[in-house]
Amino acid sequence: MNEKDTKQQSITPRSEDFSQWYIDIIKKADLAEHSTVKGCMVIKPYGYAIWENMQKILDQKFKETGHKNAYFPLLIPKSFLSKEASHVKGFAKECAVVTHYRLIDDPKKKGVIVDPEAKLEEELIIRPTSETIIYDAYSRWVQSWRDLPIMINQWANIVRWEMRTRLFLRTTEFLWQEGHTVHETKDDAEAETKKILDIYRDFSENYLAMPVIVGKKPEHDKFPGALHTYCIEAMMQDRKSLQAGTSHNLGQNFAKAFNIEFTDREGNKQFAWQTSWGVSTRLIGGLIMTHSDDKGLILPPNIAPIKIVIIPIYKNEEERKSIEKNIDIIKKDVGSNYEIEIDFRDNISPGFKFNEWEKKGVPLRIEIGPKDIEKDQVVLVRRDSGEKKFVLMSNLKEVIEKDLKSIQEDLLLKAKNFRNNNSFNIDNYEEAIKILNGEGGYIYAHWCGNKECEDKIKEETKATIRCIPLDQKEEEGICIVCGKKSKKRVIFSKSY
Amino acid sequence: MNEKDTKQQSITPRSEDFSQWYIDIIKKADLAEHSTVKGCMVIKPYGYAIWENMQKILDQKFKETGHKNAYFPLLIPKSFLSKEASHVKGFAKECAVVTHYRLIDDPKKKGVIVDPEAKLEEELIIRPTSETIIYDAYSRWVQSWRDLPIMINQWANIVRWEMRTRLFLRTTEFLWQEGHTVHETKDDAEAETKKILDIYRDFSENYLAMPVIVGKKPEHDKFPGALHTYCIEAMMQDRKSLQAGTSHNLGQNFAKAFNIEFTDREGNKQFAWQTSWGVSTRLIGGLIMTHSDDKGLILPPNIAPIKIVIIPIYKNEEERKSIEKNIDIIKKDVGSNYEIEIDFRDNISPGFKFNEWEKKGVPLRIEIGPKDIEKDQVVLVRRDSGEKKFVLMSNLKEVIEKDLKSIQEDLLLKAKNFRNNNSFNIDNYEEAIKILNGEGGYIYAHWCGNKECEDKIKEETKATIRCIPLDQKEEEGICIVCGKKSKKRVIFSKSY
Repeated sequence: MNEKDTKQQSITPRSEDFSQWYIDIIKKADLAEHSTVKGCMVIKPYGYAIWENMQKILDQKFKETGHKNAYFPLLIPKSFLSKEASHVKGFAKECAVVTHYRLIDDPKKKGVIVDPEAKLEEELIIRPTSETIIYDAYSRWVQSWRDLPIMINQWANIVRWEMRTRLFLRTTEFLWQEGHTVHETKDDAEAETKKILDIYRDFSENYLAMPVIVGKKPEHDKFPGALHTYCIEAMMQDRKSLQAGTSHNLGQNFAKAFNIEFTDREGNKQFAWQTSWGVSTRLIGGLIMTHSDDKGLILPPNIAPIKIVIIPIYKNEEERKSIEKNIDIIKKDVGSNYEIEIDFRDNISPGFKFNEWEKKGVPLRIEIGPKDIEKDQVVLVRRDSGEKKFVLMSNLKEVIEKDLKSIQEDLLLKAKNFRNNNSFNIDNYEEAIKILNGEGGYIYAHWCGNKECEDKIKEETKATIRCIPLDQKEEEGICIVCGKKSKKRVIFSKSY
Repeated sequence: MNEKDTKQQSITPRSEDFSQWYIDIIKKADLAEHSTVKGCMVIKPYGYAIWENMQKILDQKFKETGHKNAYFPLLIPKSFLSKEASHVKGFAKECAVVTHYRLIDDPKKKGVIVDPEAKLEEELIIRPTSETIIYDAYSRWVQSWRDLPIMINQWANIVRWEMRTRLFLRTTEFLWQEGHTVHETKDDAEAETKKILDIYRDFSENYLAMPVIVGKKPEHDKFPGALHTYCIEAMMQDRKSLQAGTSHNLGQNFAKAFNIEFTDREGNKQFAWQTSWGVSTRLIGGLIMTHSDDKGLILPPNIAPIKIVIIPIYKNEEERKSIEKNIDIIKKDVGSNYEIEIDFRDNISPGFKFNEWEKKGVPLRIEIGPKDIEKDQVVLVRRDSGEKKFVLMSNLKEVIEKDLKSIQEDLLLKAKNFRNNNSFNIDNYEEAIKILNGEGGYIYAHWCGNKECEDKIKEETKATIRCIPLDQKEEEGICIVCGKKSKKRVIFSKSY
């Protein structure tokens, strides 16, 4: 693509069309694209590098807390899905179904057809989640309390047939991690569920700079088959909520369905206690919608694949050479701590490069020209604030360290302020509806626990209960819809 | 599983039944198991940790040589497979076919059935390899020589419907990496193909301690659609050959089929030059069959998830405490460099632990008992040789470093010697047949280039041409089968 092409296609402002802005950002930052296969995406190298960073950080946290990785089959026998009654009842049945196992040459023309002789006796489902296939294995592994806990995580691809797709947020195939643990006691399972929830919160806030509300899903919205489901919810810049991760206490439901039974310390047989939990490439969507602006992607330093881009400005070979020398010094000085990209492309102007790396959200940009060399300085530009300053080479390492830290903190703070400014304690039904149908945001309101009351708000506004925040004191209140007694507030919001 | 159970199930000796020995090793080392889903395996945590180490090392080598990771869809439209004529002709058509996208509740009874209304217009194939789906994307990405080279790798799961499966060696689903690059010139593509081949060789020899022959496949055995295919072949302890990795120069074949065209430096349109290459979880099978013995798995230190296991021997709390102190010292001293496992399980005897970690192939074992504490020493045991020695605590760090290095070298040397002792330059047909039908091994023989001549040997012995080794001088010879002129030897061997 040449310079002209790109300038013509600018990014739609958020204020004009948030959805189009989101699509434009992904395209301009070269993160992903739709595949020819309906509903599936291609995650391009720059987008995948973000996912790799997410994997690296989370994987380390999982391992530090005693989890090990393993791998279970992609394909699940159809009958497995029906073993746990509420799992099959509640789970979306839009799944990819494998019915045949062979192609043959088309006898009529070039190409291949499905061999009608090669029909499977029992259809196989591409995993929409792996509880059933994993717990089938666990039932063979667990005999005694000495086999517990089992603490396993899997990095895998998942297929759920989606009619309306959106890159990263909702695609037919996506990547995720799913943890599946087995414990001796109910308390152990609950502690694990909460521990993981806190890893998700910490990761979201301190790496993605994406503040989250930690909460519990209402009974009718929990994972099918779970005792209860915890989640983290993040507010996007359009004031809608993104469910960014879930952690389920499965109780003994699946253990009973899959016969995961063990002899406990007292010698009695009992069913095991389980948890499952996951985050996915959806987090990349959250990252985009939390920070980015009308100029492009903004990445927090702690997750950015490239922390600093250096753009040399020169007119001749001599200038280039003296700049190269200083770049070598920077690489040596700073490059061992941070991923640096040096953009020496000679068919593109510096201005175009500024623009391009801004779109890609690289936290810091260094510009070096002949005049900077003279003054033994560089120009340092922050992607988040646009702040531009001259920095002496001798101070550069220190300033970079400070700036990266400050960008990370400022992005979190900005997102927190945005969320707080768009969160409201509301005790009046009409007012809630007005906000939800207007600018939107998080409505903290009392709710009686009845699905019908949520449904009423949903009908009027499309907003739903995102969660019951864990971090709140009980207070006397009445359901915003029906007036029945309530002790806790829930969050109503539109969502992804 | 208790002590008694395990002792009863011993490992079948290699000399008795090599296949059963292989299965026993996998089971005893707890690497993997067959899933309830026919042909699919569960890779258990210890087996997956080996794969993670393989990934980590290879991923770094790919990145150091300019490759980036990305992710492409699991599902491929059926019509894509027919686009490249020899690809569809040559590629095995045993694929998992997705025909439907929804389940519904069974109206007759509990459970689910496939929704007959939800039939796909065009069937989707679960990737048996990703050339077609990736090159469909590349055709959109490549316009100018400035877009080249594209150097992308993908870590993914693959499904090929296999009737006869063997853990790690041949399963319906397996894990692999597949690199897919696009270049301006034929030479660039050939250089890339060879560069990757060398990465595979280096990895096999210096990490897996698995010596390989680097060679080219005969024309009739190359990857369907490739110009030519290079491979690495390793001899297993039963003298059969394992194809451990392949690197294909695809020429312009796929570029023509998928229309990957670019404007070159002279302003002319031309088709791009491509490569693809991969290694898979099959390498774990190779690792097992290269080194392990009748006592269990043997892992080279450079790939072992656990380098050292420490087994404390004590009878009371006091003894335990003094041992713990010394273990803390070892952990501090050695643990920062090497992964150490400390086995304090109190329901299992030291002898049973020795046995168990031997089965798991941990390179070094440290035993510490009260007498060792008195003498300020430990007992150090090598898994490969069984060598057992007393080492003073003050020398331990140094001895461990030396021993791990020596184990790594010795395993490679041993495997090389085994291969060399079972490799024969043969110029006589009867002699070749006799060896191939007897003890087996690598038969280096002249071959005219005709498939019929290979077929004749295959009929008599089941052996095939594994490769034409690259590292050989031309010499005058005659085909061992038909007597026609030949300038190079090929390797005949039975294989996996």
